[in-house]
Order: sequence, then C-alpha cells, then structure tokens
Amino acid sequence: MAGKLTISKVEVLDVRFPTSLEAHGSDAMHTDPDYSCAYVVIHVSENPQLKGYGLTFTCGRGTEIVVQAVKTLRFLVEGQDCKKIWSDFATFYRNLTSESQIRWVGPEKGVIQLATAAIVNAIWDLWGRHENKPVWKLLVDLSPEQLVSTIDFRYIRDVITPEECIAMLKEKKGTAGEREKELLQGKGYPAYTTSVGWLGYSDERILRLTQEQLALGLVSFKVKVGQNLEDDKRRLRSVRKAIGPNNKLMIDANQRWEVQESIDWVTALKEFNLLWIEEPTSPDDILGHATIAKALKPLGIGVATGEMCQNRVIFKQLFQANAISFCQIDSCRVGGVNENLAIYFMAKKFGIPVCPHAGGVGLCGFVQHLQVWDFISLSGSMENRMIEWVDHLHENFYSPPVVKDGHYLVPKDPGYSGQMKEESIATYEFPKGTYWSNVADGQASVQPTMVCQ
Amino acid sequence: MAGKLTISKVEVLDVRFPTSLEAHGSDAMHTDPDYSCAYVVIHVSENPQLKGYGLTFTCGRGTEIVVQAVKTLRFLVEGQDCKKIWSDFATFYRNLTSESQIRWVGPEKGVIQLATAAIVNAIWDLWGRHENKPVWKLLVDLSPEQLVSTIDFRYIRDVITPEECIAMLKEKKGTAGEREKELLQGKGYPAYTTSVGWLGYSDERILRLTQEQLALGLVSFKVKVGQNLEDDKRRLRSVRKAIGPNNKLMIDANQRWEVQESIDWVTALKEFNLLWIEEPTSPDDILGHATIAKALKPLGIGVATGEMCQNRVIFKQLFQANAISFCQIDSCRVGGVNENLAIYFMAKKFGIPVCPHAGGVGLCGFVQHLQVWDFISLSGSMENRMIEWVDHLHENFYSPPVVKDGHYLVPKDPGYSGQMKEESIATYEFPKGTYWSNVADGQASVQPTMVCQ
Repeated sequence: MAGKLTISKVEVLDVRFPTSLEAHGSDAMHTDPDYSCAYVVIHVSENPQLKGYGLTFTCGRGTEIVVQAVKTLRFLVEGQDCKKIWSDFATFYRNLTSESQIRWVGPEKGVIQLATAAIVNAIWDLWGRHENKPVWKLLVDLSPEQLVSTIDFRYIRDVITPEECIAMLKEKKGTAGEREKELLQGKGYPAYTTSVGWLGYSDERILRLTQEQLALGLVSFKVKVGQNLEDDKRRLRSVRKAIGPNNKLMIDANQRWEVQESIDWVTALKEFNLLWIEEPTSPDDILGHATIAKALKPLGIGVATGEMCQNRVIFKQLFQANAISFCQIDSCRVGGVNENLAIYFMAKKFGIPVCPHAGGVGLCGFVQHLQVWDFISLSGSMENRMIEWVDHLHENFYSPPVVKDGHYLVPKDPGYSGQMKEESIATYEFPKGTYWSNVADGQASVQPTMVCQ
Repeated sequence: MAGKLTISKVEVLDVRFPTSLEAHGSDAMHTDPDYSCAYVVIHVSENPQLKGYGLTFTCGRGTEIVVQAVKTLRFLVEGQDCKKIWSDFATFYRNLTSESQIRWVGPEKGVIQLATAAIVNAIWDLWGRHENKPVWKLLVDLSPEQLVSTIDFRYIRDVITPEECIAMLKEKKGTAGEREKELLQGKGYPAYTTSVGWLGYSDERILRLTQEQLALGLVSFKVKVGQNLEDDKRRLRSVRKAIGPNNKLMIDANQRWEVQESIDWVTALKEFNLLWIEEPTSPDDILGHATIAKALKPLGIGVATGEMCQNRVIFKQLFQANAISFCQIDSCRVGGVNENLAIYFMAKKFGIPVCPHAGGVGLCGFVQHLQVWDFISLSGSMENRMIEWVDHLHENFYSPPVVKDGHYLVPKDPGYSGQMKEESIATYEFPKGTYWSNVADGQASVQPTMVCQ
C-alpha cells in the first residue's frame, strides 16, 4: 500500500424520499416518515476516481441537524491519510467521538453518533473500493489483529478484551473458507420481511402483500403493533392464517409501551406463536427490557431491540442483564462499522444471535456485509439469524441488495453498497432537488395532494 | 389569566466564552472547554416587553449543531399560546420530544435533548416573569396537580405515578411555609466549590484557591482526578491538608475510567476521606455504576453521576440499580425543568439526595431554583445536599446567582436567572461578536496568543 490517500473533502447532502405519501415505514411512533439520509461522499487528493460513499438513515425533518453535525466533524477528517486511518482505525474513531469540545453534545449518542456513522461508513466503503472488495470480504480478509484494532474498547473492557476477540476470530479462521463457499454457492443469507405489516396499511393490503412475499420465498414476517390491541389481533390472525403455523412471525411495537403494558399486551397476543417482540419500550431502558424478557420467557417469546440503541455501552448492558434474545444492530445508529464490530463480538460472547435492523434507506445494503462477515468469521452460524428485508427505495442505489427465494445474495461489487444514483440525488436532494422544488412547501407529509410525479 | 400569550418568535444565538485560555473547566475528558451556550429568547405577540430567556450549556465546537436543532424544533413552538402550554405542559413537552420524524435523531438524548432544554427553560422563565415570580416560587405556588401535570411520565410509570407525586407534594404542603422562611431568613442553601481543582491548574494555584474559598466560607470541595494517580494523590493531599479533616472532599473523574479501573483508582485514594466519586465511567453505563457503587460502599465513598445522563429513563435505572448515592441533575442536559421534576420525584421515592451539577454557563443560576423548590415542597431536607458552585462568567448575566458564606442566597428576581447581558452577547456571540471577530480564526483554544483584550 505505497503512497498516501489524503482525504481532501467530506461532502454531505440532505436527501429525502417522500415515503409518507404511501405510509411506507409507518409505525406506532413514526406515523409519517419521509425516509431520508445524511449522505456523505469522501474525496481523496491522489485519485479523483476513488470515492467513499456513506450515509446515515433519518426520517425527514431533523436530517438538516445531522448534516450540520457532519460539517462540524469535518475538520477531524479532512487532511487525514486513509492509510494511516486504516492502520489504527480505533484511534481515528476515538478522535471523532471524543473530541474534547464536541463530546459534550453527545457523547456517542443521538445526532452526533448518526453523523459519525455516515462518515465512518464512507471511509469503510472507500477502503473496500481501494482494495477492490466488498466490505464483507475486506473484513473476512483482514488479519484478526487488524480487524480488532479498528474497535474502541473504552467502557466495554469489563466484558470483553481485544485478546478475546482475536482468539474468537482465530478459532474460526480454519473453516472460514467453507462458510464463504457455502454462502456464495448456496442460497445466501436468510431474510425476513417487514414490508407486509406497516401500521398505516389496510388489512387487504397486508394480506395481499403477505401472499406476494410468500410467493417470493419469504418464510419470516414482521408486523407492526401497538396502537390498538384488537386491531393487532385481527391483523396478526390474518397474517398467521396466510403464512401457516410453521413460518416465523414477529411483532414490533416501536417503543410504544410502558414496561408492564408490554408484558400485558404481548401476553394477550401469545396465541399467534410469536418469535419476538421488538422494541416494546424505550431503547434506553435496559432494566425494563430485562423485566419484559423475564416475563415473556415462559411464553417462548423473545425480546429484540437495538435499532435505536445508541452505542456499545447500551448493548453491553442489554447482554449483561439478559434483556434481549435477539440483537438488532443498526448500521448507522451507532458510529458505523467499527462500533458494530464491537457489538458483534459481545453478542458472540453472550451467545445472542444478531438479526440486523434494516428498515430505512440504504440499511439493507450495509447490514448484509456485516452479517455475511459474522457468519464466515465470527459466529459461524445462521441459526436463529436473519436480516430484515424492506424492499423500498433500492432503485436509488448503484449496487442494490438482492433478495431471491427469501435469501440475500452475497454482494459482489467493491465497497459497502451505499452509493446513490446521481439522478436520485438530483431528484431528491432536499430542498433543491427537482422533486422537492416542485412541492410547494417542501413537506411531502403536509402537502400530499400536490405530488403527482 | 385572561387573554392569550402567543409565541411569535423563537430566537437562538450561539454564544461562546474563551475559557480555554485559562484552563477554567478543564478535566480529564474536556481539556480545553470554551464554555458556551445555545441561547434562546422567546418573544410573545401580545407583550413586546415580556420575553423568556433560556439556554443550554455547551463546550464550544458543536454549539452550532444545537443551534440548528433549536431552529428545527421552532415550528413546534412558534404560534403556540403560552397559557395553553402551561395548562397542559406535558403534552407540549411530548410534542417537542416525540415529533414523528425528528424523534429518529434522538429520541430524548444528545443534541436534540439539549435543544429541547434551551426552549423549555425559556418557556419556564417566561412563565415566571409573567407571574412576577422567580421560578422556584412559581413551582412552590403551583397546585400539586398542576405541577405534576407538567411531567411526561412515559417510560417511568413502572417506578412512579402522577398520583404518588401529588401525594408527596401534599404531604409537605403544610410545613412548606416554614421551610421557605428558613431559606429566606437563614443562610440560604449550602454550596460546594469546584473552582479550586480543575485539572489544568498548577498545584500552587489549587492551594491558593482552596485557601481563598475557605476564607469565603466554603466547607465542601471538589477536585478533578483521573489523568495520573500520583498527581491525584499529591493534589488531594494538598487540598485535604488545607481544608482539614472535617470539611467535605469530593472527586470527579469525568468518565475517564473503565469499571474495574474506577474501583482500583478510587480505592487507592481512600485515605483522603472522600464523600463521592463523580462520573467514574460512561454516563450510559448504569450497571457499571452499580458495580462500582457496590465495591466502594465498604469504603464509605458514594457514587455520583448525572450531568451527562440523557433523560428520566437513565435516572430511573440508576435508582433501580442502586447505582448512585448522589443524583446530579443538570438543568440543561435533560429536556429542561419538566424532565428534571420527574427526576426529583424519583430521587425522593428512592431516598437519594439531589446535588445538582452546575459547572458551566448559567447552570448555577438555574439549578438554585430547582433545589430551593425541592427543599420547600418535596424533600423537605438539606441533609447530604448541596449545589455546585463555579464562580465563572456570572458577570454576563442580569440576575446572577449569589453565594455568601458558603451558601446560595435565594434568588428574588422574576424568572429563571438565565438572561444574559446585552453587552456580553454583543461581545461573545459566535462568530460575529466583537471578541471573536478580533480573533483571527475564531478558535480561542487554537490561537491563545492572539487574544489581548
């Protein structure tokens, strides 16, 4: 790797899709999301053709705050040599998350953590492109020592050490080739679908979509719940009937409930043979999730959460407290690939399967890399594991994820699958893209009747 | 309260003081803070003289992100009738913290929570001014039902209910007048000082400041630790010698350590007879704090944290897990007065004294109101309670807090004590104030030699 790769510019754009018009993505807490992102492009001085593309998912309003945060963090990134970053990524990561003045407005949570993710994901994409490998393959091929050197272990050393992580990888190294072959030559990685049961959809639409997804080979289905118990029963009865007794059915409350309310509500739905209840209550409530998990265990219903858990310290405690049976990492909520690696290692140590969250823009593309790496290099297992599949907006990406016969096909293009098409940006950049400048007040959810593209 | 009070404008300014030049506020994690704030002024249509002033404390870089967040939230505030807000404050608060699109970039944490605090604090200030009362007196005079109606109980109903809170207030109502008199006619509310022991100060300076503070009547002292154990020992020995065996001594690590490291380091300092160790590790690590608290209990050293704990859900768990002996609310970190009231009620229920964090800009001014209210209306006790006192930057406020003979004097001016002087804003607004436009690159901490005012 001779020669420098100096980051000359961190470009950031606000891109918003008017999904609220169709109630895509609607749940008990996010009733009108416009799936959006703070989109980051990293340029290097030495090679104008080589760029890194990353993003963090948002829901419309508020994206401009994350964009501002990326701009604030830029001075820590521009001028840095990528080769130096990659050789000691944890130090770069720490500098980004613990800058002495900026950390006060985080640290490692909320807006600033989302902005960190967009930047860090772009740097991994660039690394993959530079090596001409998809990021999962880059991760698989790194030496255990170098992979582990990307992780900031601050605040998690009481449960895991770098030495333990290196040993985990080494233990699986000998058989990694077989699993890589299995994934590439076999069906791929199991997916589950959330697209059938958004809260804003009608019963007829849910049933039709369930049948369509079944026909596409999906065997695991997630339905949004939490606004009205009788509605939930009716919708779940309908979906369970359509998918039969053996396919998997999960529910997602998107933080709607109190602790006891979670237990009562889910208990009232036990007849539908549910694999997990996702986000029953506040993502900050570790002890609350532990209480819910304990109460639901006799019913065979697991607790899942993670998409809004801010960092490795929260996940550490979810594991310590036996609060979750399924760990739902988000590729952009925590600070990008590095932070997610830390979470995967802890999940492995505590024996909890990772089933990534991917409902949003670009998330399916990212998490497939992490999950493929996990199977090949870390957990060595697909048991109880699957990747969320939400088939919206993929047409806006150059290397979209592909699900066939209920499985993600292993991505083969170099990078992290997050590069958006130029025409999509020209259309949906907010507020100056052609779509938004044609909408009078720039708010799809406020002016649906004005949209006629 | 006839007639409306319509919020016509939410003004927001970025104000930064070049404190890094003097190492004021320096600790193990924030080595060069420029004490700053996102400063909010709320205007009402019906009365151009009546304004509400609020702020959230920041450390310099990153303030612009919080300013952007206030601008994003503005549409939820402008046009609202204050009288309606005050009659159902919890609903307004929930609308602000749970807006269906914006909540994704929080929720209730980090940048968005700081911005919420600045707005909410300004609305309380305006309420106090409208009633011609300091906010503590406004709180004392509200009926128990109305006071409790300002709190959003979502996610804390498993430990506390509105009915319990109302009962707590009613129980103390009969004797409240006596305690109010005691505070007004007596010495005031006990303070402790942090000004002697910032990490960037020399040993000589620490000793001189300790002696000065002793002469001013202070009897409780906090020293920053965590960079080097031998340095800490030397500094603590010096301060303990100066203050004698009976005065209180606390230490603050500002999140520097791992869990086991916290236990080991503090144990090595036990000879100095310490009241508490503050922020030993990540503010997100509830279970870590519980482990540390358990280990240090036999040494008689309590664990304190809170200034960077994001919301009521984190505090709920700190209480549930017996993780803290002292609860350090911050007036601006959580979403303002309403959220802090929730925390005070839980602290009361779990029998944990509140000792507010106040190292920053404007924080001493705010927290005195909350603590005075707590003494009069809720806890009824000053035992084991004191308010941090950091005597920096108060000259920039119209109604600065006053500490005499080691006690905060009860504030008497209407409002929440957060109105900044116009000349201070003209000087320190960033980057266009006269101070910053005279500094070449707008970064005090980078260009200290250029500052010569």
